[in-house]
Amino acid sequence: MSTRRGPSGRLYGVILAGGRGTRFWPRSRRNNPKQLMKLWGKSSLLRQTVDRLRPMIPSRDIWVFTNRNLVREVCRQLPDVPRAQIIAEPVQRNTAPCIGLAAELIAARDPDAVLGVFPSDHLIRKPAAFHRVLRLAAKQARLGKIVVLGVSPRWPETGYGYVEFARRPALAPLRALPVKRFREKPSLAVARRYLKTQRFFWNSGMFFWKASVIREALQRHLPRTAATLAAIRAKVSGPGGAPWKRLPGVLAELFPACENISVDYAVLEKASQVVGIPCDFGWNDLGTWSAVYDLLPHDDRQNALYSETLLIGSSGLLVDVPGKLVAAVGLEDLVVVETKDALLIVRRDQTQQISRVVSQLEKARREELL
Amino acid sequence: MSTRRGPSGRLYGVILAGGRGTRFWPRSRRNNPKQLMKLWGKSSLLRQTVDRLRPMIPSRDIWVFTNRNLVREVCRQLPDVPRAQIIAEPVQRNTAPCIGLAAELIAARDPDAVLGVFPSDHLIRKPAAFHRVLRLAAKQARLGKIVVLGVSPRWPETGYGYVEFARRPALAPLRALPVKRFREKPSLAVARRYLKTQRFFWNSGMFFWKASVIREALQRHLPRTAATLAAIRAKVSGPGGAPWKRLPGVLAELFPACENISVDYAVLEKASQVVGIPCDFGWNDLGTWSAVYDLLPHDDRQNALYSETLLIGSSGLLVDVPGKLVAAVGLEDLVVVETKDALLIVRRDQTQQISRVVSQLEKARREELL
Repeated sequence: MSTRRGPSGRLYGVILAGGRGTRFWPRSRRNNPKQLMKLWGKSSLLRQTVDRLRPMIPSRDIWVFTNRNLVREVCRQLPDVPRAQIIAEPVQRNTAPCIGLAAELIAARDPDAVLGVFPSDHLIRKPAAFHRVLRLAAKQARLGKIVVLGVSPRWPETGYGYVEFARRPALAPLRALPVKRFREKPSLAVARRYLKTQRFFWNSGMFFWKASVIREALQRHLPRTAATLAAIRAKVSGPGGAPWKRLPGVLAELFPACENISVDYAVLEKASQVVGIPCDFGWNDLGTWSAVYDLLPHDDRQNALYSETLLIGSSGLLVDVPGKLVAAVGLEDLVVVETKDALLIVRRDQTQQISRVVSQLEKARREELL
Repeated sequence: MSTRRGPSGRLYGVILAGGRGTRFWPRSRRNNPKQLMKLWGKSSLLRQTVDRLRPMIPSRDIWVFTNRNLVREVCRQLPDVPRAQIIAEPVQRNTAPCIGLAAELIAARDPDAVLGVFPSDHLIRKPAAFHRVLRLAAKQARLGKIVVLGVSPRWPETGYGYVEFARRPALAPLRALPVKRFREKPSLAVARRYLKTQRFFWNSGMFFWKASVIREALQRHLPRTAATLAAIRAKVSGPGGAPWKRLPGVLAELFPACENISVDYAVLEKASQVVGIPCDFGWNDLGTWSAVYDLLPHDDRQNALYSETLLIGSSGLLVDVPGKLVAAVGLEDLVVVETKDALLIVRRDQTQQISRVVSQLEKARREELL
C-alpha cells in the first residue's frame, strides 16, 4: 500500500448487519434475519460478505454494525473479526447514524481512514469484477469524493433507489462519473423509462468515503446527530482505561438521541462531490424468495427442490420443507417453505407480499412467529 | 317385527370395513384408512355407518368385515358390536367372498337371515330418507329378491358403476324396479349420455338379500368359492366347543382359496331376480379430498380451513395442517394437508391423482409413508 501512488488512507470495511429481513419469513425471523441465514448449505450472506472483502480488506479492518438481538450470532459467525469491532446498536436509527458512528470510532484510531460501507445481505456473483470496482472506489474516496456503486439495471425494478448520470455511461473501462441525482424507488412506469434511457443505475447501497468526509457531511446536513456521535466518541476514546468496554453503556445512553434517517436521504442527495461507478458484478439483493428461486439451479421442469419432493404434473416450484415428504400434484410456480412452527405457500410472482404476512403477525402480537 | 305382514326374516347389517382408502393420503394410511378417520371432529365414517343403521338394525345384529391390520381399531370404535361379529380377513379377496362368508356365518345362527351390505366409508346426509329406503329394501329381500340401491346421479361421474333401468324411474313414491343391466365405470362421454337419459343410477354398493339367496347365487356363479365358504362354516359351526374362537385359524387356512372378485361382477351382473330402488338420501362416497371440500362449510372466499391460516389473496382452499400457522399468498383452489411425516399440496381438480402418489411410494418401498 505504501508504494501506491496518490493519496493514502487505509480502507476499512463497514458492514451493516442489523437488518430484520422479514421478506424471507418464515425462514427468517427477528433472531435469524436474512443476513445470518444459510441458504441451502452455503455460508451465511454475512459470512460471504466478509469473505468477499478479505482479499482487499483483512478481517482486522472490518467493523460490523448490528443490534443486540443478533450480536451473539454475528460474533459466532465472524470469529476472525475483532470482538471490539462488532457493535450492537441499542436501537434502530437507520443508516446515517450508524455510518456516522463507524466514522467516529474508526477515525479515533486512524484519522486517515477510508470507509467502504457494505450491506450484509446481498449476493455478488462476480467477485473479481467486484474487486476491480472496489479498487477504483477506494482511490476515488481517497481523493475526497463520496463514491456510490451503481449497478447496471437488468429490469425495471420498483424496489430499489436509482443513481442518475447526466449521460449514458459505459461499463468499460471502469470509471467514476459525477452523479446527477439520486432517485427514490420509482413507480413501474418511471422505472421502465429509467431502464430505457440507460442513464439510471440501481443504487447498490455500497458507499466509499473518508471518515473525515462523512463527519463533515453529517456536521453540515445532520448537526444534531453529528454532535451526538462526537460525544459518544469523546466518552470512549478519552483517558480512563479500557475505554472500548464502556461503549455499550455509552451507546445505550446517547445513541437513541440520533435522528432516524438513511444516509441516502440525509447526505447523499444533498452532497455535491458525489461520484458513481457504473458497474456490473452479478449483484443481487435477494429481496424475495422469488429472487432466490431465480438464482438456484433448476431441474428440467424448472423446480428448485431442497427437500424430498414427489412431483406429479408440477413445475416452477421452490420447495424447502425439512424432514418430511412433500407431494405436489398439479402445481405451478409456487414457493413452499416450512419451519417448525409455520408453513408458507406463496405464488412465485407474489413473494413481495410476504411483508404483509409479517405485519399481520405483528399486529396480532404473535411474537413467537416473528 | 312379528306383527309385520308378509314374509319374515331378521335384517342383519354386514359392514365392509377392509378398504385401504389411499385417496386420503397423507391423512389416510394402511393402518388408518378412510373409514376409520375422523373428518374434523365428527366420529369416524365407520362409527357413523353403525349409528345410522341402529334405528333399524341393533348393534347385536351388525357384522363387520375388516382385515388384520385394522381389526383392533375397529373393535375400539365399535364396542357395542359383539367381538365375535368383527371378522378379520386374512387376505383381501374383494367383496364376493366376504359377502358369501357373511351369509354362511350368519345363516349358521339364523337360517332366515336377511342381509344388508353396507360400505363403511360413505356419507349419507338424509338419514330419514335412508331409513325409508332400508325398509323397502328389506321387504323386497324377504321376497327373495336381490336388491341394489341406485343413487340418483348428480353429475356424469366416471368413478362409479351404474344401475340401468328399462324406463326412466320416478324417485317418489319409493319403488323397487327390475334392473335392466349393471354397467361398469363409464367414460366421460358415456357418463354424460347416462345422465341425460335419466335411466342410469349410481351403484351405491349397498345390497340386500336373504342369506340363502346369496348362497345359492354363489353356488351357481362361483362354485369354488361357495364350496370353500361352506367348508369354513362347517369347521366353525360343528360340535367341539367354542367354535367361534376357531374362526381366525380356519380363515387363515381356507379363506385364501376364495376367488378374488367383486360381488357385482361375480353375481349381480349375472343374476335375474335383481331389483333396484332409485333413491336419493344425500349419498356421497367421499372419494377424494375434493369431494370432502365440497361438503364442508366455506368462508366467504370459499375456503374450508381446519387449522390456523393467514390468507392473503387466496380462495378455494382446503387447509388442514395441525399445529402450525399456514400463510397462503395468492393461492387458488388447492388442498393442503399435512401430517407428521408428509405434506400434500394438490390442485383441487386433481385430487384423484393422489393414488399416483401412493403407488409411487409403494414402488419406492416407502413403507413408513403408506
